[in-house]
Amino acid sequence: MTHMDLNTPASLETIQASTRVLAFDIFGTVVDWHGSIVREMQTLYPSVDANAFALAWRAGYVPAMARVQSGELGWTRIDELHRMILDDLLPQFGLTHLNEAERVHLNRVWHRLDAWPDSVAGLLRLKKKFTICTLSNGNLGLLTHMAKHAGLPWDCVLSAEVFRAYKPDPATYLGVANVFDLQPQEIMLCAAHHDDLAGARACGLRTAYIERPLEFGASRVKDVSPQAGNDLHAHDLNGLADLLGC
Amino acid sequence: MTHMDLNTPASLETIQASTRVLAFDIFGTVVDWHGSIVREMQTLYPSVDANAFALAWRAGYVPAMARVQSGELGWTRIDELHRMILDDLLPQFGLTHLNEAERVHLNRVWHRLDAWPDSVAGLLRLKKKFTICTLSNGNLGLLTHMAKHAGLPWDCVLSAEVFRAYKPDPATYLGVANVFDLQPQEIMLCAAHHDDLAGARACGLRTAYIERPLEFGASRVKDVSPQAGNDLHAHDLNGLADLLGC
Repeated sequence: MTHMDLNTPASLETIQASTRVLAFDIFGTVVDWHGSIVREMQTLYPSVDANAFALAWRAGYVPAMARVQSGELGWTRIDELHRMILDDLLPQFGLTHLNEAERVHLNRVWHRLDAWPDSVAGLLRLKKKFTICTLSNGNLGLLTHMAKHAGLPWDCVLSAEVFRAYKPDPATYLGVANVFDLQPQEIMLCAAHHDDLAGARACGLRTAYIERPLEFGASRVKDVSPQAGNDLHAHDLNGLADLLGC
Repeated sequence: MTHMDLNTPASLETIQASTRVLAFDIFGTVVDWHGSIVREMQTLYPSVDANAFALAWRAGYVPAMARVQSGELGWTRIDELHRMILDDLLPQFGLTHLNEAERVHLNRVWHRLDAWPDSVAGLLRLKKKFTICTLSNGNLGLLTHMAKHAGLPWDCVLSAEVFRAYKPDPATYLGVANVFDLQPQEIMLCAAHHDDLAGARACGLRTAYIERPLEFGASRVKDVSPQAGNDLHAHDLNGLADLLGC
């Protein structure tokens, strides 16, 4: 179920010998945001179309970050962006009656996302050979709470919040290399999103694509066929551990 | 072996009910820098007075940070400060012959410090009830490597490097509250140094003093008697877990 991309720029031997740090995208790559939000909505607000709600909330994410990146908003953490999107979204789902405490609780669902079934086992294998860290646009508090909730065994939690820039800003990818005093090619970004991997590759990092066909749920299955440029292509995090000899 | 300070400003019940995050000073509080450096020097350079060497290296730390705090040096990580101090120190210990690779290796001893015997067990107990993080002047890479070396189970690695300020700058203590979106009194700084605890207290954090009488080795035993102002006074991290009901 795991295989290398045919256009791999670096040999597996080179990658295994030179990679020191694996930096992971989180939403969709390590945790199942769609399934987690659907399950929580079905419990809390069963009359709402949970699939549509989860997709709409996530769809607001890139435009909200773009308002920060353009300078329209000053530096804003994802917790605050999630809340702005949520408040905008509640009317169309008949949830305007939610009070402040209910909105705060619902917004924190992003701190309570469940891992994909392979994530913890795969990370534990990878952690024996590499330093494993997050590199997410999620804020430090969110990522820390999520790690406690889902049992994710990070060596270090890194975030856009540390670098004051959102991916795909080069400051994030190069920031990881700087933190560990390494060359960019000694860092590998592991992500389920080609645009994120392209940003990392442009900075000289190695890249591993992780298939997550159900990231957006069963109603919108993702094309996870290999694309040129990525160093590795893995079915899941156990597959990545296989490829990296862990 | 553990007891509360007689001048405790907050009751133990209040502290147990309201504390959410324990932030730990690292050098001396969680890891034994003196003993670790002595052991490594005795192995690498047995002719050197390892105790004097360790004490001299550490003594250069506060003056080096003061050069950053005064603006004489721009933002500089502890790894670089340790190296500057080391280079200054080698002549008086007859080690000017060390080449670049040997100096790099020796400087990284700060990434390989051993934990005090109680640290890992105490942290594992505390982690079940609280979020546990570092709050150290050590840089993120150093703290991450140390955690892997010593098995320290942090939920999150925070550092002066994140806040671009060294303790006791208020930006560091208040930075932890900001990261977790909490009030200062919901954070407790745990440290073996009264000046660090005083800085945290001035920002509204709770404080726990950890006795480490042998921080500077057997030749310079530290007075660890209770001082007024700290919320808790513990013999070690297991004692802190006892006090906090973990």
